[in-house]
Amino acid sequence: MKTHWIAIDWGTTNFRAFLMQGSKQVSRISQPCGLLSVEKDQFAPTLQNLLQTWLEQYGNLPIVMAGMVGSQQGWHEVPYAPLPCNAQDLASRTLAFTTPWGSQAWLIPGANGTSQFGQPDVMRGEEVQLFGLSALHPADEHFVLLPGTHSKHAQLRLGEITASSTFMTGEIFSLLSQHSILGRALPEQQEDNEAFLLGVRTAIQGAPFTHLIFSARTRRLAGEIKEASVHSYLSGLTIGYELQALPAALHAWLVGSPSLTARYELAASLMDLNFSPANGDDCFIHGLWHLFTQLQGNRS
Amino acid sequence: MKTHWIAIDWGTTNFRAFLMQGSKQVSRISQPCGLLSVEKDQFAPTLQNLLQTWLEQYGNLPIVMAGMVGSQQGWHEVPYAPLPCNAQDLASRTLAFTTPWGSQAWLIPGANGTSQFGQPDVMRGEEVQLFGLSALHPADEHFVLLPGTHSKHAQLRLGEITASSTFMTGEIFSLLSQHSILGRALPEQQEDNEAFLLGVRTAIQGAPFTHLIFSARTRRLAGEIKEASVHSYLSGLTIGYELQALPAALHAWLVGSPSLTARYELAASLMDLNFSPANGDDCFIHGLWHLFTQLQGNRS
Repeated sequence: MKTHWIAIDWGTTNFRAFLMQGSKQVSRISQPCGLLSVEKDQFAPTLQNLLQTWLEQYGNLPIVMAGMVGSQQGWHEVPYAPLPCNAQDLASRTLAFTTPWGSQAWLIPGANGTSQFGQPDVMRGEEVQLFGLSALHPADEHFVLLPGTHSKHAQLRLGEITASSTFMTGEIFSLLSQHSILGRALPEQQEDNEAFLLGVRTAIQGAPFTHLIFSARTRRLAGEIKEASVHSYLSGLTIGYELQALPAALHAWLVGSPSLTARYELAASLMDLNFSPANGDDCFIHGLWHLFTQLQGNRS
Repeated sequence: MKTHWIAIDWGTTNFRAFLMQGSKQVSRISQPCGLLSVEKDQFAPTLQNLLQTWLEQYGNLPIVMAGMVGSQQGWHEVPYAPLPCNAQDLASRTLAFTTPWGSQAWLIPGANGTSQFGQPDVMRGEEVQLFGLSALHPADEHFVLLPGTHSKHAQLRLGEITASSTFMTGEIFSLLSQHSILGRALPEQQEDNEAFLLGVRTAIQGAPFTHLIFSARTRRLAGEIKEASVHSYLSGLTIGYELQALPAALHAWLVGSPSLTARYELAASLMDLNFSPANGDDCFIHGLWHLFTQLQGNRS
């Protein structure tokens, strides 16, 4: 029987843990207790509490963690691995320690490098999904979009992450819809694919972003979008703007939750882009499993 | 002796009134009581209260108003004048009424049209400054930047406003510095021209905006900008991004407060742009005076 172990994605706002048996997921926990809700010296007791049922049932299982939990604001800071890097590079820079209750634990580092636009860039957590995608769908080259609060556009070549660029799409959408004049005094919002696609079409005409978004105000004033559809329009503007930065005729993987990748695919239907969706959780689990096997190899 | 009258700029967050004698400013009031702090049926008593001293001294002076006070959320809605339009067009669409205390009052309409990037666009208040600039500095053509919460890039030809594009520069800066991860957990901020100019230099390299701004995080992580200089860097990014949308070798007027136009001039020193600053209040007053003389002409 294959060994049980625990895979954890501990981010800024969310905590997700997967009870694993080899490469297979047995059970999972999802809690809104990301870094922001954990005091610096409370990571160990918080984790022990969250995993209590599994630890009681299976004993002190090994734990492999990735995400912001390895940042300056996290449990232990693990310095970024410089790009380009492969899974072996990442495994060799992983921080190993023992938890107060006796589990062997590993903290996977993030990666940093220079974006496709010449800017410094960083990731924590997505590197695991990238290695998972590469293990699940082997190919010489992958171009990968990981949509989210901070979307990543990454490239893999022969199993090595070569570059990544962050787009703050999800966060900008939240700021505009919740805190800006564009979202002020709106009624309850509805999903409106037509307004979303109007946003995408508007974005891909190439206007500068800080000008482009003002159209959410002027189109609302002119009655061209419904009051209940402003969020859908803004979502189309921000996602369309992100996708417009991609080279034409690109084939790319879309790694994320099915609802989010579906939204990106809808936007891409108006553009010369060819997306293949892949489940973000599957990629994360397979990436950590791949790294875990390397870590166990390192140890022996 | 020339007649006294009152010029008012009543916006979303601020109220400013100028006691005028002909084209000369005699006195002024500035209060943070913009539209957001006035109930829909309280505009008349609020204004009477704000102007009390002048009304007691000079009687029921004529009042000319511009800005968001003429919007749907304002005192009386005045429909936008379509671009292109000149001062006479604007005067002919001005709403005239008598206040409850017997002052003759005029509400100048805003203007709407299509931006230089093909998007619907609107202004309320800036049209007055544009006619003021044109009266103060006559020329066949003006290209004008009016920096602010919603910066405008406008063109005037032979005294007619032909087009305008809004850039939400000031509002985006506020959102990023106050509500985003980029501004989280910062110490007290300092003016730092070096960080500002680094932001401008970074912005004009042409990266997409939602990617560009992530450099405020990565540069902070890498120690390339000081914790106390993040706002200056973000200001450089957002202003640099706005200016990068302008055609090279442009000569433009910069209409605004001296501190804001100085900041735009500093950014432009790194670019092939040639700016002439003009005081925003002077332009506003002269624009309203110009319109007031037309309104009096219309009446007689």
